[in-house]
Amino acid sequence: MRWSEGFIAIDWGTTNRRAYCLDGEGRRVDEFEDAKGVLSVPADGFPAAVAEIRQRLGDYPMLLAGMIGSNRGWREAPYVPAPAGFDDLAGALVWVGEREAIVPGVSYLENGRADVMRGEEVQLLGAIGNGSIGGDGMACHPGTHNKWVTLRGGKIDSFRTVMTGELFSLLKEHSILSDLLQGEVDVNDVFREAARHAIDNESLPADLFSVRARVLLGVGRKEDAASYASGLLIGADVRVGLSYPTGAQISVIGRPDLTRLYAVAVREASRDAKELDGEVCFLAGIHEIAKRI
Amino acid sequence: MRWSEGFIAIDWGTTNRRAYCLDGEGRRVDEFEDAKGVLSVPADGFPAAVAEIRQRLGDYPMLLAGMIGSNRGWREAPYVPAPAGFDDLAGALVWVGEREAIVPGVSYLENGRADVMRGEEVQLLGAIGNGSIGGDGMACHPGTHNKWVTLRGGKIDSFRTVMTGELFSLLKEHSILSDLLQGEVDVNDVFREAARHAIDNESLPADLFSVRARVLLGVGRKEDAASYASGLLIGADVRVGLSYPTGAQISVIGRPDLTRLYAVAVREASRDAKELDGEVCFLAGIHEIAKRI
Repeated sequence: MRWSEGFIAIDWGTTNRRAYCLDGEGRRVDEFEDAKGVLSVPADGFPAAVAEIRQRLGDYPMLLAGMIGSNRGWREAPYVPAPAGFDDLAGALVWVGEREAIVPGVSYLENGRADVMRGEEVQLLGAIGNGSIGGDGMACHPGTHNKWVTLRGGKIDSFRTVMTGELFSLLKEHSILSDLLQGEVDVNDVFREAARHAIDNESLPADLFSVRARVLLGVGRKEDAASYASGLLIGADVRVGLSYPTGAQISVIGRPDLTRLYAVAVREASRDAKELDGEVCFLAGIHEIAKRI
Repeated sequence: MRWSEGFIAIDWGTTNRRAYCLDGEGRRVDEFEDAKGVLSVPADGFPAAVAEIRQRLGDYPMLLAGMIGSNRGWREAPYVPAPAGFDDLAGALVWVGEREAIVPGVSYLENGRADVMRGEEVQLLGAIGNGSIGGDGMACHPGTHNKWVTLRGGKIDSFRTVMTGELFSLLKEHSILSDLLQGEVDVNDVFREAARHAIDNESLPADLFSVRARVLLGVGRKEDAASYASGLLIGADVRVGLSYPTGAQISVIGRPDLTRLYAVAVREASRDAKELDGEVCFLAGIHEIAKRI
């Protein structure tokens, strides 16, 4: 192995993938992103897909994270149980070939409560790895399925998934609210008011219908409905997250457009929020794992 | 008018319609049901659709309720504000022709909380009208959008809509849980356990993801996932409903397969539930309105 001479890191999700060529110090040399998520690749198509990535980024060893390690991906990488840190992930890499390793996801199981993550663990630990946050505290990772994570001793100690992003998409694409939710979500007073309402009240499945009733009865404007619905969903999500013991500051890691919304909602709950770019954290995390090979 | 000689009553929803011919005493003489909901009828197609119903059931005057009175129906019937009883509905009928009247829906607006119903009001008041329940108490009407309703002095005093039925459909048809939710919902221990969990905890958007994680980690069986998810959603719905002041007994009005699920969940919350057939209540309610014409 010559991982110290550089490698390819891939964050391979369900619908998208991002691939990077990193040098021995973990600096980005080259990269691309496209829509060839695992669902778009036939079950026997991964060797060809990986060869194509090497054609574009160079003939380097490869570390893959995300849904590529699910039962719908290239090779299933069994979950590592929490608490899980870099050494645990590096020790449980699944080698598909001599130069291709898949990073496992993390599972949580306690008192019958079951949860899983796949992909977020690299970003969460990466934020610790590059010193952006300490090894103890609370973080969240907004996305299709937001994760609330307790970090302890530099490891993912426990976590909880909230289906916020997917629920918003379902409502926007297929529900009775669909025509109301086509507008942009703005971080405005309407968003803040809805987030505060949902942080203070526990009635999300009822509040969602009010998005429509407010417009029908002239209490809310149609143009504000997407911001209002997003505020309700993210506020309810923050309510779940803050029901766990937390430190003063919540680290919000992910896509900047999403971390912005969550940071605003966390502050509506009178907590401090620190936003971190998920891509930067991913690269820091995947480099830490590569160093342990 | 000769409504006392019989009339046609139609419960005309978004995707289905049920039409009945009633005699002067409100007894069913004839009926049919089909999938010609308002969304399947072009905007100018309602006169023909109504003529077709008269061909099948007889040339009688007609009372129409449900989404037929929405802005996507035949003629918009403005909401009557709660508190609303039979006299209020009968006084606000919208006459499309001399022999065709549309029953208005009911709206609720207080402290900025907005809500609407259209169709359920006939069944809810009908249960009072035929003496199945008293004029004061708490009822719910499961369906695509469940309604929790406080009845006072024989009127709909206030109500709250919970999007439970639609959320279950969205998750079943389009979400990451889709393949897990294709099975039947059984009223079994799994359903009861999930309902009790959701009645006691306020974390629905997180609990929904656990439907998947439980199966992945072997805590739950795939065959039970639909019952578990339904229990979580209906339990969370009951939690919203019971947050309002209630009497000892909850009347559950609607389709028998749905009232069964809600009655079980209400009992898990240590309340008494009485199930009532929504169709019987609809006919009783529409007859009460016809008597006031």
